[in-house]
Amino acid sequence: MSDAAASAVSEARQWARLMELAGIGGLAVPGSEDRGVNRPCLTPLDRQARRLMIGWAEAIGCTVTVDGAANLFFRREGREPGLAAVLTGSHMDTQPEGGRFDGIWGVVAGLEALSALHDAGVATRRAVELVAWTNEEGGRFRPGCTGSMSWAGHTDAAAFRGILDGDGVSYGAALDEHLSAEADVARRALGGRPHAYVEAHIEQGPILEADGADIGVVTGIQGSRWFTVTLVGETAHAGTAPLRGRRDAVQDMVRAISALNALTEDATDTLRFTVARIEVSPNTSNSVANLVRFTIDLRHPEEAVLRAKGDAIEGVIRAAVRGCAVSVFENFHAMPVVFDPLVTGAVAAAASAEGLRPRALPSGAFHDAQFVVPVCPTGMIFVPSRKGISHNPAEYSSPAQLAAGARVLVRTLAALAG
Amino acid sequence: MSDAAASAVSEARQWARLMELAGIGGLAVPGSEDRGVNRPCLTPLDRQARRLMIGWAEAIGCTVTVDGAANLFFRREGREPGLAAVLTGSHMDTQPEGGRFDGIWGVVAGLEALSALHDAGVATRRAVELVAWTNEEGGRFRPGCTGSMSWAGHTDAAAFRGILDGDGVSYGAALDEHLSAEADVARRALGGRPHAYVEAHIEQGPILEADGADIGVVTGIQGSRWFTVTLVGETAHAGTAPLRGRRDAVQDMVRAISALNALTEDATDTLRFTVARIEVSPNTSNSVANLVRFTIDLRHPEEAVLRAKGDAIEGVIRAAVRGCAVSVFENFHAMPVVFDPLVTGAVAAAASAEGLRPRALPSGAFHDAQFVVPVCPTGMIFVPSRKGISHNPAEYSSPAQLAAGARVLVRTLAALAG
Repeated sequence: MSDAAASAVSEARQWARLMELAGIGGLAVPGSEDRGVNRPCLTPLDRQARRLMIGWAEAIGCTVTVDGAANLFFRREGREPGLAAVLTGSHMDTQPEGGRFDGIWGVVAGLEALSALHDAGVATRRAVELVAWTNEEGGRFRPGCTGSMSWAGHTDAAAFRGILDGDGVSYGAALDEHLSAEADVARRALGGRPHAYVEAHIEQGPILEADGADIGVVTGIQGSRWFTVTLVGETAHAGTAPLRGRRDAVQDMVRAISALNALTEDATDTLRFTVARIEVSPNTSNSVANLVRFTIDLRHPEEAVLRAKGDAIEGVIRAAVRGCAVSVFENFHAMPVVFDPLVTGAVAAAASAEGLRPRALPSGAFHDAQFVVPVCPTGMIFVPSRKGISHNPAEYSSPAQLAAGARVLVRTLAALAG
Repeated sequence: MSDAAASAVSEARQWARLMELAGIGGLAVPGSEDRGVNRPCLTPLDRQARRLMIGWAEAIGCTVTVDGAANLFFRREGREPGLAAVLTGSHMDTQPEGGRFDGIWGVVAGLEALSALHDAGVATRRAVELVAWTNEEGGRFRPGCTGSMSWAGHTDAAAFRGILDGDGVSYGAALDEHLSAEADVARRALGGRPHAYVEAHIEQGPILEADGADIGVVTGIQGSRWFTVTLVGETAHAGTAPLRGRRDAVQDMVRAISALNALTEDATDTLRFTVARIEVSPNTSNSVANLVRFTIDLRHPEEAVLRAKGDAIEGVIRAAVRGCAVSVFENFHAMPVVFDPLVTGAVAAAASAEGLRPRALPSGAFHDAQFVVPVCPTGMIFVPSRKGISHNPAEYSSPAQLAAGARVLVRTLAALAG
């Protein structure tokens, strides 16, 4: 049954669907052959991409439903409809200058698995469901993973409604507009308790490629803590105000980041510390800045390290700045998670059945799967990312690598669905 | 004649006009009694303020004209209309979170001088003209002083047309729109050769107040060099990309600013080095920044220091960064200028006649006057700024301080106009 389904995976069909979706919000990169994607969640582009998916899924007899968090589900019924379904999926939104594979491949691979099961005429005992989670990236509304967090009950869905995007549009308003545009799709209740969840994703890191491995059997996900730091100083005239008396928010930001670099220094290069979003006010060249707001993204696979470093951030910044008032707000945290052997075992067995070279590894990136962990046995499948590049138009995995991933996915789903 | 005109200066009228103008684009500061102003050049707010000025000037018989750079002139004719006029003026635009006095007081003080001459029935030999220069601040279109630079022939006026504001509107388009809104005002040719130019301005620095002086006899203006630095790195996933391999534009900015702080260290605290505008791309918390652009504002009263430090900037940044490509573009430079004894002498004599305590000092700030220096004898009058604060809603000079400044101005103008 798994052999038949795996044989029915079509490298060409999967690649063609991916490239068609990559054209929705597609970005050309001047002077490069790379093609990126900018497809924020809950936008007309997002809806256009979802309509394509709906059409493909309906053509193979799937039932399509959407929940109150705009998570979109495609169900292929099993022989025993009363049993909990096996769930697979990922997300369809991208970073503002993202690639063609991050997230969307997991959704397309899930559809490829459903298509292969359909084409091979396989009747699983349990239903297999595919989900496209809302707003994983956090590129438009921070934090990300609001779809899976709402679904899993990690956070009450209503708590996210007030989040604003860069244009001042609230998540709640964007969600309402989106759901009314998809009012023709049957509504399902938020939440559920699947038999298991398996998410296929590109690695977004360099390990599989460096190792010559074909498939990542993901053991868990490192933890993340996200902070917003606000430094409030005083504007002054850039020409007249002596430097010694200034309360310059840009200079205090430089002191703060330098001190945080020292705090997060790690000889093993395991810890991830990133400052990537900065807002300055009034942001005019000849007025000393009276306000700087910057983000911190801190990640580590060990909970103890993540707790200790994250908890030290505020004190380190306070000790580093000279004139500014400091506030540090933790927007989000997710402690490291460990995946379930039911799923990791099925993934390893599927890779082995395909004759592929697997490698066990933790995920460096943040995924919807981490919020599903408390709900049901969960795991992930990785395929190699060229040079480990992601969140970038240069992101690439080959058609053959992605087809191998889809074959492992369909075998895993078939095994779990029985 | 000068005594009569100085006696006709009205502290109450000048303050009332200033406060009425401060209401146009007025900013309340939460939790503070300070009132700021945000009135960018060439906007409906700017035009509203100019209409007020036009009404007041016409009521005392002045002729109003505007040139092709939107510099607005108010002329009180002299006994010998063929002679070169004495020019006074300043600007009416503000920083995005500016105060109620920077620039606009020099225009209102000029009008107060014209009003006092009118009320006292003084007939000067030369005409006295008041000018409101366009876009001094550079808050909307950088660099600033485009009005006075165009008028003085420092830069061809057409060269500024392509500059874009933060909304992508070009200076040329804003200028055209503005001039058509003021099509009822008589047009005059750009440029001229006044007998002398004197600009009244708040000090925007702490020296007069610290010294207990009433009036600043400004000896010249320190030089300025403005740069834009662009750092180009590579985006990467904040969770998976090991720190060692990153080309993180935010981290390279921190290295660059730290190195520039060392370059510009000055035990005398005379040099001014400011980084106050930063743009980050893609500016999302979990994607390593692939581009940072920041401004440098460097000022010093000595040309040799300004040249040496400014010329060293690019090399210092290149040596400091790790992974990013660097480009440094000098947007603007103005070497230090020295004012003419014809004007500084008249200002000192006027202060003395008023029984005020003068203090000679160079200007730390950048003013339209520096571009007038090559055209005619030029000088400036300063009044104290509370705590030296400027470019900030807390900017303040008292009604009495401003009235003293207006009395010195009218005496200076009367002496120069004969």
